[in-house]
Amino acid sequence: MIKTHGDYKQRLHDSFYKQGLMQTLNCKLGEVSAGKVEAIMPFDDKFTQQHGYFHGGITGVMADNAAGYAAFTLFEEDDSVVTAEYKINLLAPAQGETIIARAEVIKSGRTLSVVKSDVYTRLNGQEKHVATGLFSIMRLIGAAKKEI
Amino acid sequence: MIKTHGDYKQRLHDSFYKQGLMQTLNCKLGEVSAGKVEAIMPFDDKFTQQHGYFHGGITGVMADNAAGYAAFTLFEEDDSVVTAEYKINLLAPAQGETIIARAEVIKSGRTLSVVKSDVYTRLNGQEKHVATGLFSIMRLIGAAKKEI
Amino acid sequence: MIKTHGDYKQRLHDSFYKQGLMQTLNCKLGEVSAGKVEAIMPFDDKFTQQHGYFHGGITGVMADNAAGYAAFTLFEEDDSVVTAEYKINLLAPAQGETIIARAEVIKSGRTLSVVKSDVYTRLNGQEKHVATGLFSIMRLIGAAKKEI
Amino acid sequence: MIKTHGDYKQRLHDSFYKQGLMQTLNCKLGEVSAGKVEAIMPFDDKFTQQHGYFHGGITGVMADNAAGYAAFTLFEEDDSVVTAEYKINLLAPAQGETIIARAEVIKSGRTLSVVKSDVYTRLNGQEKHVATGLFSIMRLIGAAKKEI
Repeated sequence: MIKTHGDYKQRLHDSFYKQGLMQTLNCKLGEVSAGKVEAIMPFDDKFTQQHGYFHGGITGVMADNAAGYAAFTLFEEDDSVVTAEYKINLLAPAQGETIIARAEVIKSGRTLSVVKSDVYTRLNGQEKHVATGLFSIMRLIGAAKKEI
Repeated sequence: MIKTHGDYKQRLHDSFYKQGLMQTLNCKLGEVSAGKVEAIMPFDDKFTQQHGYFHGGITGVMADNAAGYAAFTLFEEDDSVVTAEYKINLLAPAQGETIIARAEVIKSGRTLSVVKSDVYTRLNGQEKHVATGLFSIMRLIGAAKKEI
Repeated sequence: MIKTHGDYKQRLHDSFYKQGLMQTLNCKLGEVSAGKVEAIMPFDDKFTQQHGYFHGGITGVMADNAAGYAAFTLFEEDDSVVTAEYKINLLAPAQGETIIARAEVIKSGRTLSVVKSDVYTRLNGQEKHVATGLFSIMRLIGAAKKEI
Repeated sequence: MIKTHGDYKQRLHDSFYKQGLMQTLNCKLGEVSAGKVEAIMPFDDKFTQQHGYFHGGITGVMADNAAGYAAFTLFEEDDSVVTAEYKINLLAPAQGETIIARAEVIKSGRTLSVVKSDVYTRLNGQEKHVATGLFSIMRLIGAAKKEI
């Protein structure tokens, strides 16, 4: 499960920052290793719900991004990534200075990968677990080649 | 299931537009009735994924908003709404001029409501079904009062 | 989406009744058409939970069976079916003389199909909606041939 | 999260074995501690799918049971348990001499608990991870009293 291909960190970096949404959210990659990806964004009241916390949908976006790219770390060089489906449980209001998603591949399959992704907020140096999700990520074999 | 309370449309309107994220997305309420809510946003490349389509996370945000507020239409005046969990299947790339989420309550319970939410894109007057989801929405009884 | 292949009803029948579990549950196929399958089983206290209702897990089994075989109706002759994942919301206690699952394909993809599946109980001629689920069903292309 | 109430193991034991389905499956409780439950059943071709493996629905039943009772370990004496919803990803064919579900509470809330549940098969002394799921379990406060 931990086999990577070529310079996967560079490919991941390029694909991740090509997303308009990641620039809009000011979301950055954190630690990346085989089967694991961390994504981090600062609090911004542009992305709040009706009580002033991070919107639960943004929690979902963060979890999804980390999950998709965690699967991507184990893909071959020409493969492309797309989320097939996910389920997320919101555990607590997402309140803090930053929001951090950490995803880890449970199973890397030929077409489908199963990835768990957890989201935390950090406030005054303390982390709080705010969401946990399970993702089915699809590998599009050879699709990255056609994108060019 | 179709009983509403007081001026639910006004309460819904107020709560919906209090969300920083809805202003950021330029997302508007569409048709609203007992147990049903529609939400609409225009395409904007600030919210794209790596291939230039609407980000799947934004599809989730739209589905979630419509779902939460569909449940809210059947709440009592002092109740507040929060998403407990959801699952969403992405059916097709979300490409179009607008993205539309339509949610409908399946079961309105005392604490938990089950809501289905479907997302469509519109391009040249044609709609395409891009996602389908199932949401568990929690009613916080009397919580709206405490928020003031 | 509604294209079928060969005598799909016969293939479905053969595969469905090959399942030890369906005999154990005394579960039968109901109406079958392109993209739609109904499955029915009688109440039996061998399959109850701690309050004497149908066990929620059995509700899941019924929903899953109908979902998998609904996808199967649109497969080609040598394809085999397997459930990749599902999510189910239990809406009410499953109490009745019979339990009925009705599934319908939302999207039939090359490898993944998305299927919704609803479960009802029937008591004194009246149906009650007891569960709703969303399933990702995988097509194993050509796998049925290798099984022989 | 790890607070238990009274003789929770005895209450759990009583409730678990009151289920007709657990006797039918010959399913037994394994290790039980605060927030954690293990359930074990032997292979039996009464519970197979069309290829002779454990039926995926049975995998779901096992995961669900362990999850519900893991939440139950943290309930007060008169509380009753019911599954609100779950999502499960099937990772591999469930083939083996026994099937084992291990569940652990992620968050124990007043009405809703979030529980992860993993399923393994054991064959020739080796375990294989065959499914992973995320469950929302509902606490019915004081309901156990009324059941008597």
